[in-house]
Amino acid sequence: MQSILMVGQSNMAGRGFLTAVPPILNDHLRMLRNGRWQQLAEPVNVDREVAGVGPAPAFAQAWSADHPADTLGLIPCAEGGSALADWAPDAPLMRHAISEARFAQETSEIVAILWHQGESDSLNLHYRTYRDQLRQTLTHLRTALNLPTVPLILGGLPAFLGQHGFGLSATEAPQIDALIHQTASDLPHTYFVTAADLTANPDGIHLDAPSQRRFGVRYYQAFRQRADVLAPLPDEPQRVAQLTAHPLTPAETLYLQSKRFALGQTTFTEFMAAVRASQTQGADA
Amino acid sequence: MQSILMVGQSNMAGRGFLTAVPPILNDHLRMLRNGRWQQLAEPVNVDREVAGVGPAPAFAQAWSADHPADTLGLIPCAEGGSALADWAPDAPLMRHAISEARFAQETSEIVAILWHQGESDSLNLHYRTYRDQLRQTLTHLRTALNLPTVPLILGGLPAFLGQHGFGLSATEAPQIDALIHQTASDLPHTYFVTAADLTANPDGIHLDAPSQRRFGVRYYQAFRQRADVLAPLPDEPQRVAQLTAHPLTPAETLYLQSKRFALGQTTFTEFMAAVRASQTQGADA
Repeated sequence: MQSILMVGQSNMAGRGFLTAVPPILNDHLRMLRNGRWQQLAEPVNVDREVAGVGPAPAFAQAWSADHPADTLGLIPCAEGGSALADWAPDAPLMRHAISEARFAQETSEIVAILWHQGESDSLNLHYRTYRDQLRQTLTHLRTALNLPTVPLILGGLPAFLGQHGFGLSATEAPQIDALIHQTASDLPHTYFVTAADLTANPDGIHLDAPSQRRFGVRYYQAFRQRADVLAPLPDEPQRVAQLTAHPLTPAETLYLQSKRFALGQTTFTEFMAAVRASQTQGADA
Repeated sequence: MQSILMVGQSNMAGRGFLTAVPPILNDHLRMLRNGRWQQLAEPVNVDREVAGVGPAPAFAQAWSADHPADTLGLIPCAEGGSALADWAPDAPLMRHAISEARFAQETSEIVAILWHQGESDSLNLHYRTYRDQLRQTLTHLRTALNLPTVPLILGGLPAFLGQHGFGLSATEAPQIDALIHQTASDLPHTYFVTAADLTANPDGIHLDAPSQRRFGVRYYQAFRQRADVLAPLPDEPQRVAQLTAHPLTPAETLYLQSKRFALGQTTFTEFMAAVRASQTQGADA
C-alpha cells in the first residue's frame, strides 16, 4: 500500500462544499483514522466543522486510474488558519503530522507530500522571512520522515485573495505565491502547481469544490510528470469529469447503502435487499 | 485547562443523528485537532463519515455548568467497530490514543477517561476472556499516561443489542455488560454507568442522539459522585434539557455566524452585520 501526506492550511484541508461536486468513492482509496486505514470519504481532513472538499481526493482518484491494482491512503494533517510559523520543526502541528505519518508508515510507503499554505502569511510583510522559513519547514519534514526524494508538491495561491470577504486581508498573496514557486525551484524533488483560474467560495478565501477537483488533478499531473504545472491543463475539464465517470463497483455501492442505513435514510429491509443485490452483482462480475 | 480522553468503539465516538438534538455550543469547551485545541463542535470524534452525537459533549456541557470559569477539552480516540483486542497495549488504536493524549497533556491536565466498548465482543464466546483483557487494557492506559487515580468511567451495553439490524449478532451483550460492571468493581477509581432504558437508531446497534445526551449526563454523574450509576437518574430529562437551555454568548453566536458564512449560507454583508451586532452585544455584557 502507498500513501500521501497532506499538510498546510485550510485549502489543503478543504472547504469546498460537499454538495457541489459528485462524490469520490473508490474501493482502492483509504484515509487514516486513529492510526489505521478506513475507506476514503469526504471530508478527509476534518480539522473543523466546516471541512469539505480539498485537492487530495481528486489527486488520489487520478492516481488510482493509473494504478488500478494498488491502494492509496491519505494522511490528513492540514490545519485551517495555520501560519507558516505554526509549522516550525518544534511546533505541535509539525510534531503531530510527523506522528500521524509514522503511523501510516507502519503499513504503507509514503510516495508524495502535498503542501498548500500561505494565506495566513499574506500580510504584515511576512514575505520577508517566508522563503527561509518554508525551506526549513519542508526540509525538516523530509528529514524527520526519511523521505529525501519523494515528490513534494507545493500549491500556489489563488488570484482572488486580497479582494473580499475573509480573503480581504491577504493583500500580499502575490509575493507569497512567488516565494512558494521559488522554493519549489530551490529544493530538489519539489514541484510547483499554479492556482491560476481557480475560483472561491463566497467567503473569498477558500477554493470552491469544482476548483479543488481541478487543483487535485494539477497536483497529480506534477506528481506524474515530476515537473511544475504553471498553467491550467488543456484537458482539465475532461480529467475532472473522468474522476467520477466510472460505474460504482458492488463494494462501493454497498458502502453507500451502509452509509444511508447508518444515517437512518433506509430501513433494514431495504438495506438487506441492497446487500443481496450487491452480492449477486459481485458474483456476476 | 482540563481535558477528557474518549476511548472505545462507535457508541463512544457517537452515531446519534446530529439533527435530532439541539447542538451543544460553549466557549469553554474544546476538542483536539491536529494536536491543538479548537472550539468544540459535533461530531467531535470523526472516525467515520457517519460520526454523530456521542456521550462526551453532554458530559462536557454538564461539567462546564459546574466549572464556569474553566475550560475543558475533549480528546477523541474512539474507533467504530473496534474489538477489545484492537485495544491491546501494542495495537495501533492504543498507541495512537496514547499519542493523542500526550499532545493534550502538553497543555492540559486529563481529569477523566470515558470508555465505551463491547458490542464487537458480544458474540463467539468472547466473554470468556473479556474481563482479563479489559483489565489489561485499562491498566495499560492509566500507566502509559501516568493517570493512576483519575476517574475512569465505563459505560454498560444497551438492552436493545442482539435484537435487530446491525445489533443482531451481539447476542452475548448481557454477559459482556456484566463483565464491564464487574471490572469497574475490580479496579480502583473506576466506575460503571448503566445504559438502561437507552434507545437505538434504526440500525439496532447505535445509541440515538437523545439517548447519548442522557448517557453523557450519567457519565458526568459518575464522575462528580465518584460512584457507579446503576439506574437512570430521576431528573435525567431536566438535566438534559438544561444542557442547551442557556442563551448563547456573543462569542457563541459569532461562531455560529462564521460557520453559516463559511458554508455559503449567508452573504458577507449579512455576516459583517452579525459581527457588529455581536460586538455591541459583547460590549454591553
